[in-house]
Amino acid sequence: MSRIWYFSGSESGELRITSSKCLRGEPLPNAPFLTVGSQQPTREVVFSLCGVISNERYVTRAEKQELVSRQVALGRPGATAGAFIPIKKNADWWALSQDERRKIFEADSHHIAVGLRALPQVARRLHHCRDLVEPQPFDFLTWFDFAPEDTPVFDDLLGELRATEEWTFVEREIELRVERDPSTST
Amino acid sequence: MSRIWYFSGSESGELRITSSKCLRGEPLPNAPFLTVGSQQPTREVVFSLCGVISNERYVTRAEKQELVSRQVALGRPGATAGAFIPIKKNADWWALSQDERRKIFEADSHHIAVGLRALPQVARRLHHCRDLVEPQPFDFLTWFDFAPEDTPVFDDLLGELRATEEWTFVEREIELRVERDPSTST
Repeated sequence: MSRIWYFSGSESGELRITSSKCLRGEPLPNAPFLTVGSQQPTREVVFSLCGVISNERYVTRAEKQELVSRQVALGRPGATAGAFIPIKKNADWWALSQDERRKIFEADSHHIAVGLRALPQVARRLHHCRDLVEPQPFDFLTWFDFAPEDTPVFDDLLGELRATEEWTFVEREIELRVERDPSTST
Repeated sequence: MSRIWYFSGSESGELRITSSKCLRGEPLPNAPFLTVGSQQPTREVVFSLCGVISNERYVTRAEKQELVSRQVALGRPGATAGAFIPIKKNADWWALSQDERRKIFEADSHHIAVGLRALPQVARRLHHCRDLVEPQPFDFLTWFDFAPEDTPVFDDLLGELRATEEWTFVEREIELRVERDPSTST
Protein backbone atom coordinates (compact mmCIF):
# COMPACT_ATOMS: atom_id res chain seq x y z
CA MET A 1 0.00 0.00 0.00
CA SER A 2 1.56 3.28 -1.14
CA ARG A 3 1.92 6.14 1.36
CA ILE A 4 1.68 8.79 -1.36
CA TRP A 5 -1.15 9.20 -3.87
CA TYR A 6 -1.45 11.50 -6.86
CA PHE A 7 -4.78 12.84 -8.12
CA SER A 8 -4.51 14.32 -11.59
CA GLY A 9 -6.91 15.95 -13.99
CA SER A 10 -6.23 14.21 -17.30
CA GLU A 11 -7.43 13.94 -20.90
CA SER A 12 -8.14 10.22 -20.60
CA GLY A 13 -8.45 7.65 -17.86
CA GLU A 14 -10.71 5.25 -16.03
CA LEU A 15 -12.55 7.82 -13.96
CA ARG A 16 -14.77 10.20 -15.93
CA ILE A 17 -15.42 13.47 -14.12
CA THR A 18 -19.20 13.92 -14.16
CA SER A 19 -19.34 17.15 -12.16
CA SER A 20 -16.96 19.67 -10.69
CA LYS A 21 -18.12 22.10 -8.02
CA CYS A 22 -16.09 24.79 -6.35
CA LEU A 23 -17.66 25.33 -2.92
CA ARG A 24 -15.19 27.87 -1.59
CA GLY A 25 -12.05 29.60 -2.86
CA GLU A 26 -10.41 29.19 -6.22
CA PRO A 27 -11.65 26.43 -8.58
CA LEU A 28 -9.47 23.74 -10.15
CA PRO A 29 -8.99 23.80 -13.93
CA ASN A 30 -11.55 21.65 -15.75
CA ALA A 31 -10.51 18.20 -16.93
CA PRO A 32 -12.54 15.34 -18.42
CA PHE A 33 -10.92 12.54 -16.38
CA LEU A 34 -9.37 11.99 -12.97
CA THR A 35 -6.35 9.71 -12.62
CA VAL A 36 -5.61 8.28 -9.17
CA GLY A 37 -2.31 6.54 -8.65
CA SER A 38 0.71 6.12 -6.48
CA GLN A 39 3.16 7.32 -9.14
CA GLN A 40 3.72 10.93 -10.15
CA PRO A 41 2.04 11.42 -13.56
CA THR A 42 4.55 11.39 -16.40
CA ARG A 43 2.16 12.62 -19.11
CA GLU A 44 1.02 16.23 -19.28
CA VAL A 45 -1.90 16.79 -16.91
CA VAL A 46 -4.43 19.56 -16.28
CA PHE A 47 -3.71 19.57 -12.55
CA SER A 48 -1.87 17.29 -10.17
CA LEU A 49 -2.35 17.11 -6.42
CA CYS A 50 -0.69 14.75 -3.99
CA GLY A 51 -0.94 13.75 -0.36
CA VAL A 52 0.26 11.09 2.02
CA ILE A 53 -1.55 8.63 4.25
CA SER A 54 -0.68 9.30 7.88
CA ASN A 55 -1.78 8.50 11.40
CA GLU A 56 -5.14 9.80 12.61
CA ARG A 57 -5.07 13.12 14.40
CA TYR A 58 -8.29 13.13 16.42
CA VAL A 59 -9.95 9.76 16.96
CA THR A 60 -10.00 8.08 20.34
CA ARG A 61 -9.47 4.35 20.78
CA ALA A 62 -13.23 3.72 21.10
CA GLU A 63 -13.94 5.72 17.94
CA LYS A 64 -11.14 4.01 16.07
CA GLN A 65 -12.50 0.58 16.98
CA GLU A 66 -15.95 1.59 15.82
CA LEU A 67 -14.53 2.94 12.55
CA VAL A 68 -12.36 -0.11 11.91
CA SER A 69 -15.26 -2.48 12.57
CA ARG A 70 -17.50 -0.72 10.03
CA GLN A 71 -15.25 0.74 7.34
CA VAL A 72 -14.89 -0.87 3.94
CA ALA A 73 -12.09 -0.93 1.38
CA LEU A 74 -11.94 1.25 -1.71
CA GLY A 75 -12.40 -0.47 -5.05
CA ARG A 76 -15.31 -2.81 -4.28
CA PRO A 77 -16.70 -4.18 -7.57
CA GLY A 78 -20.02 -2.28 -7.37
CA ALA A 79 -18.46 0.99 -6.19
CA THR A 80 -18.39 2.66 -9.59
CA ALA A 81 -19.26 6.14 -8.26
CA GLY A 82 -16.52 8.22 -6.69
CA ALA A 83 -15.76 11.64 -5.30
CA PHE A 84 -12.54 13.56 -4.84
CA ILE A 85 -12.68 16.44 -2.35
CA PRO A 86 -9.61 18.58 -1.74
CA ILE A 87 -9.91 20.96 1.22
CA LYS A 88 -7.84 23.74 2.72
CA LYS A 89 -8.51 25.01 6.24
CA ASN A 90 -7.67 28.57 7.19
CA ALA A 91 -4.88 29.91 9.38
CA ASP A 92 -7.26 30.26 12.35
CA TRP A 93 -7.77 26.49 12.37
CA TRP A 94 -4.06 25.76 12.34
CA ALA A 95 -3.41 28.27 15.13
CA LEU A 96 -5.77 26.35 17.43
CA SER A 97 -4.33 23.98 20.00
CA GLN A 98 -4.98 20.24 19.77
CA ASP A 99 -7.75 20.30 22.43
CA GLU A 100 -9.51 23.17 20.66
CA ARG A 101 -9.34 21.40 17.28
CA ARG A 102 -10.60 18.14 18.78
CA LYS A 103 -13.48 19.97 20.50
CA ILE A 104 -14.60 21.57 17.25
CA PHE A 105 -13.97 18.39 15.25
CA GLU A 106 -16.03 16.02 17.37
CA ALA A 107 -17.72 17.59 20.43
CA ASP A 108 -19.18 20.44 18.36
CA SER A 109 -19.21 19.10 14.80
CA HIS A 110 -19.59 15.33 15.34
CA HIS A 111 -17.30 14.70 12.36
CA ILE A 112 -16.64 11.08 13.37
CA ALA A 113 -20.26 10.32 14.32
CA VAL A 114 -21.50 11.81 11.03
CA GLY A 115 -18.90 9.83 9.10
CA LEU A 116 -19.91 6.60 10.85
CA ARG A 117 -23.48 7.00 9.57
CA ALA A 118 -22.16 6.67 5.99
CA LEU A 119 -20.55 3.31 6.79
CA PRO A 120 -20.40 0.74 5.34
CA GLN A 121 -21.80 2.24 2.15
CA VAL A 122 -19.03 4.81 1.54
CA ALA A 123 -15.34 3.90 1.44
CA ARG A 124 -12.88 6.70 2.15
CA ARG A 125 -9.16 7.43 2.20
CA LEU A 126 -7.71 10.64 3.65
CA HIS A 127 -4.42 12.09 2.40
CA HIS A 128 -2.46 14.83 4.19
CA CYS A 129 -0.68 17.57 2.22
CA ARG A 130 0.33 20.10 4.85
CA ASP A 131 3.70 18.65 5.81
CA LEU A 132 5.13 17.94 2.36
CA VAL A 133 8.33 19.74 1.38
CA GLU A 134 6.69 21.83 -1.34
CA PRO A 135 3.81 24.02 -0.08
CA GLN A 136 0.54 22.55 -1.42
CA PRO A 137 -2.70 24.28 -2.42
CA PHE A 138 -4.79 22.05 -0.13
CA ASP A 139 -4.37 20.57 3.37
CA PHE A 140 -6.33 17.35 2.75
CA LEU A 141 -7.39 15.26 -0.20
CA THR A 142 -10.20 12.81 0.42
CA TRP A 143 -11.08 10.06 -2.00
CA PHE A 144 -14.41 8.22 -1.70
CA ASP A 145 -16.15 5.46 -3.62
CA PHE A 146 -19.60 3.93 -3.35
CA ALA A 147 -22.28 2.20 -5.40
CA PRO A 148 -24.32 4.64 -7.52
CA GLU A 149 -27.48 3.71 -5.57
CA ASP A 150 -25.76 4.86 -2.36
CA THR A 151 -25.25 8.37 -3.72
CA PRO A 152 -27.93 9.79 -1.35
CA VAL A 153 -25.98 8.45 1.66
CA PHE A 154 -22.89 10.25 0.39
CA ASP A 155 -24.84 13.45 -0.35
CA ASP A 156 -26.24 13.44 3.19
CA LEU A 157 -22.73 12.98 4.60
CA LEU A 158 -21.44 16.03 2.70
CA GLY A 159 -24.48 18.11 3.63
CA GLU A 160 -24.12 17.36 7.31
CA LEU A 161 -20.36 18.00 7.42
CA ARG A 162 -20.68 21.28 5.54
CA ALA A 163 -23.21 22.56 8.07
CA THR A 164 -20.81 22.06 10.99
CA GLU A 165 -18.74 24.58 12.93
CA GLU A 166 -15.64 22.75 11.67
CA TRP A 167 -16.52 23.75 8.11
CA THR A 168 -16.45 27.48 8.99
CA PHE A 169 -12.66 27.01 8.98
CA VAL A 170 -12.63 25.66 5.41
CA GLU A 171 -11.34 28.33 3.04
CA ARG A 172 -11.10 26.25 -0.12
CA GLU A 173 -13.12 23.21 -1.15
CA ILE A 174 -13.63 21.50 -4.49
CA GLU A 175 -15.88 18.53 -5.15
CA LEU A 176 -15.32 16.31 -8.18
CA ARG A 177 -17.75 13.48 -8.81
CA VAL A 178 -16.54 10.67 -11.02
CA GLU A 179 -17.76 7.42 -12.51
CA ARG A 180 -15.67 4.50 -13.63
CA ASP A 181 -15.67 4.58 -17.41
CA PRO A 182 -16.92 1.13 -18.51
CA SER A 183 -14.99 1.32 -21.81
CA THR A 184 -11.65 1.50 -19.97
CA SER A 185 -12.33 -0.45 -16.80
CA THR A 186 -10.02 -3.34 -16.12
CA MET B 1 10.67 31.75 8.25
CA SER B 2 11.24 28.60 6.21
CA ARG B 3 8.92 25.61 6.73
CA ILE B 4 11.60 23.12 5.75
CA TRP B 5 15.01 22.72 7.32
CA TYR B 6 17.97 20.58 6.33
CA PHE B 7 20.49 19.18 8.82
CA SER B 8 23.62 17.90 7.13
CA GLY B 9 26.81 16.33 8.30
CA SER B 10 29.54 18.25 6.51
CA GLU B 11 33.30 18.66 6.20
CA SER B 12 33.18 22.33 7.18
CA GLY B 13 30.69 24.73 8.67
CA GLU B 14 29.83 26.96 11.58
CA LEU B 15 28.74 24.23 13.94
CA ARG B 16 31.48 21.88 15.07
CA ILE B 17 30.20 18.50 16.22
CA THR B 18 31.73 17.92 19.65
CA SER B 19 30.06 14.60 20.39
CA SER B 20 27.87 12.07 18.66
CA LYS B 21 25.93 9.48 20.64
CA CYS B 22 23.70 6.76 19.29
CA LEU B 23 21.18 6.02 22.04
CA ARG B 24 19.06 3.49 20.14
CA GLY B 25 19.05 1.95 16.67
CA GLU B 26 21.50 2.58 13.88
CA PRO B 27 24.06 5.41 14.24
CA LEU B 28 24.55 8.26 11.76
CA PRO B 29 27.85 8.41 9.85
CA ASN B 30 30.45 10.55 11.58
CA ALA B 31 30.99 14.10 10.36
CA PRO B 32 33.09 16.95 11.78
CA PHE B 33 30.48 19.69 11.25
CA LEU B 34 26.71 20.13 11.19
CA THR B 35 25.13 22.48 8.68
CA VAL B 36 21.63 23.77 9.40
CA GLY B 37 19.79 25.59 6.66
CA SER B 38 16.58 26.01 4.76
CA GLN B 39 18.12 25.02 1.42
CA GLN B 40 18.95 21.50 0.32
CA PRO B 41 22.75 21.13 0.51
CA THR B 42 24.38 21.40 -2.90
CA ARG B 43 27.84 20.20 -1.82
CA GLU B 44 28.57 16.59 -1.04
CA VAL B 45 27.56 15.80 2.54
CA VAL B 46 28.09 12.91 4.95
CA PHE B 47 24.37 12.74 5.75
CA SER B 48 21.38 14.96 5.11
CA LEU B 49 18.11 14.92 7.02
CA CYS B 50 15.14 17.23 6.58
CA GLY B 51 11.87 18.02 8.27
CA VAL B 52 9.12 20.60 8.23
CA ILE B 53 7.69 22.87 10.89
CA SER B 54 4.03 22.03 11.47
CA ASN B 55 1.20 22.61 13.91
CA GLU B 56 1.48 21.13 17.40
CA ARG B 57 -0.12 17.74 17.86
CA TYR B 58 -0.70 17.50 21.62
CA VAL B 59 -0.64 20.78 23.52
CA THR B 60 -3.79 22.27 24.98
CA ARG B 61 -4.54 26.00 24.85
CA ALA B 62 -3.38 26.48 28.46
CA GLU B 63 -0.12 24.62 27.79
CA LYS B 64 0.44 26.53 24.57
CA GLN B 65 0.01 29.86 26.35
CA GLU B 66 2.48 28.79 29.02
CA LEU B 67 4.97 27.66 26.36
CA VAL B 68 4.59 30.82 24.27
CA SER B 69 5.05 33.04 27.32
CA ARG B 70 8.31 31.33 28.28
CA GLN B 71 9.94 30.09 25.11
CA VAL B 72 12.89 31.89 23.52
CA ALA B 73 14.16 32.18 19.96
CA LEU B 74 17.01 30.16 18.51
CA GLY B 75 20.20 32.04 17.70
CA ARG B 76 20.55 34.22 20.81
CA PRO B 77 24.08 35.70 20.88
CA GLY B 78 25.25 33.70 23.92
CA ALA B 79 23.65 30.44 22.78
CA THR B 80 26.81 28.94 21.29
CA ALA B 81 26.05 25.37 22.41
CA GLY B 82 23.60 23.31 20.43
CA ALA B 83 22.16 19.85 20.07
CA PHE B 84 20.54 18.02 17.19
CA ILE B 85 18.41 15.02 18.14
CA PRO B 86 16.71 12.96 15.43
CA ILE B 87 14.18 10.43 16.74
CA LYS B 88 12.09 7.64 15.29
CA LYS B 89 9.18 6.18 17.21
CA ASN B 90 8.08 2.60 16.63
CA ALA B 91 5.01 1.23 14.85
CA ASP B 92 3.23 0.65 18.18
CA TRP B 93 3.29 4.39 18.86
CA TRP B 94 1.82 5.26 15.48
CA ALA B 95 -0.89 2.63 15.84
CA LEU B 96 -2.15 4.34 19.00
CA SER B 97 -5.17 6.62 18.80
CA GLN B 98 -4.82 10.34 19.50
CA ASP B 99 -6.18 10.06 23.07
CA GLU B 100 -3.77 7.21 23.86
CA ARG B 101 -0.79 9.16 22.47
CA ARG B 102 -1.79 12.30 24.38
CA LYS B 103 -2.17 10.29 27.61
CA ILE B 104 1.32 8.82 27.30
CA PHE B 105 2.80 12.12 26.10
CA GLU B 106 1.58 14.31 28.94
CA ALA B 107 -0.51 12.53 31.61
CA ASP B 108 2.06 9.72 32.00
CA SER B 109 5.29 11.25 30.70
CA HIS B 110 4.81 14.97 31.44
CA HIS B 111 6.64 15.86 28.23
CA ILE B 112 5.33 19.41 28.20
CA ALA B 113 5.84 20.00 31.92
CA VAL B 114 9.40 18.64 31.72
CA GLY B 115 10.07 20.81 28.66
CA LEU B 116 8.77 23.91 30.45
CA ARG B 117 11.34 23.45 33.20
CA ALA B 118 14.13 24.01 30.63
CA LEU B 119 12.63 27.38 29.62
CA PRO B 120 13.82 30.03 29.05
CA GLN B 121 17.36 28.63 29.02
CA VAL B 122 16.92 26.20 26.11
CA ALA B 123 15.53 27.24 22.71
CA ARG B 124 14.01 24.50 20.59
CA ARG B 125 12.53 23.91 17.16
CA LEU B 126 10.72 20.68 16.22
CA HIS B 127 10.64 19.40 12.63
CA HIS B 128 8.31 16.65 11.39
CA CYS B 129 9.52 14.08 8.84
CA ARG B 130 6.79 11.47 8.81
CA ASP B 131 4.55 12.98 6.16
CA LEU B 132 7.14 13.90 3.54
CA VAL B 133 6.84 12.26 0.12
CA GLU B 134 10.04 10.27 0.47
CA PRO B 135 10.10 7.93 3.48
CA GLN B 136 12.55 9.34 6.03
CA PRO B 137 14.81 7.54 8.51
CA PHE B 138 13.44 9.59 11.46
CA ASP B 139 10.02 10.90 12.52
CA PHE B 140 11.23 14.08 14.24
CA LEU B 141 14.32 16.26 14.18
CA THR B 142 14.75 18.58 17.12
CA TRP B 143 17.24 21.41 17.16
CA PHE B 144 18.20 23.13 20.41
CA ASP B 145 20.55 25.92 21.41
CA PHE B 146 21.60 27.30 24.76
CA ALA B 147 24.47 29.05 26.53
CA PRO B 148 27.32 26.64 27.44
CA GLU B 149 26.74 27.37 31.15
CA ASP B 150 23.14 26.12 30.79
CA THR B 151 24.31 22.69 29.58
CA PRO B 152 23.24 21.07 32.90
CA VAL B 153 19.66 22.33 32.35
CA PHE B 154 19.67 20.69 28.93
CA ASP B 155 21.24 17.48 30.25
CA ASP B 156 18.52 17.25 32.92
CA LEU B 157 15.83 17.74 30.27
CA LEU B 158 17.18 14.86 28.19
CA GLY B 159 17.60 12.61 31.22
CA GLU B 160 14.05 13.19 32.37
CA LEU B 161 12.50 12.67 28.94
CA ARG B 162 14.46 9.50 28.30
CA ALA B 163 13.17 8.00 31.56
CA THR B 164 9.51 8.43 30.52
CA GLU B 165 7.02 5.89 29.25
CA GLU B 166 6.89 7.89 26.00
CA TRP B 167 10.55 7.05 25.35
CA THR B 168 9.84 3.29 25.45
CA PHE B 169 8.34 3.89 21.99
CA VAL B 170 11.57 5.42 20.64
CA GLU B 171 13.33 2.91 18.39
CA ARG B 172 16.09 5.17 17.05
CA GLU B 173 17.70 8.19 18.65
CA ILE B 174 20.91 10.04 17.92
CA GLU B 175 22.30 12.97 19.86
CA LEU B 176 24.80 15.35 18.30
CA ARG B 177 26.24 18.13 20.43
CA VAL B 178 27.68 21.09 18.59
CA GLU B 179 29.42 24.38 19.30
CA ARG B 180 29.55 27.41 17.10
CA ASP B 181 33.04 27.50 15.62
CA PRO B 182 34.48 30.95 16.47
CA SER B 183 36.73 30.95 13.39
CA THR B 184 33.74 30.81 11.03
CA SER B 185 31.03 32.57 13.02
CA THR B 186 29.41 35.53 11.31
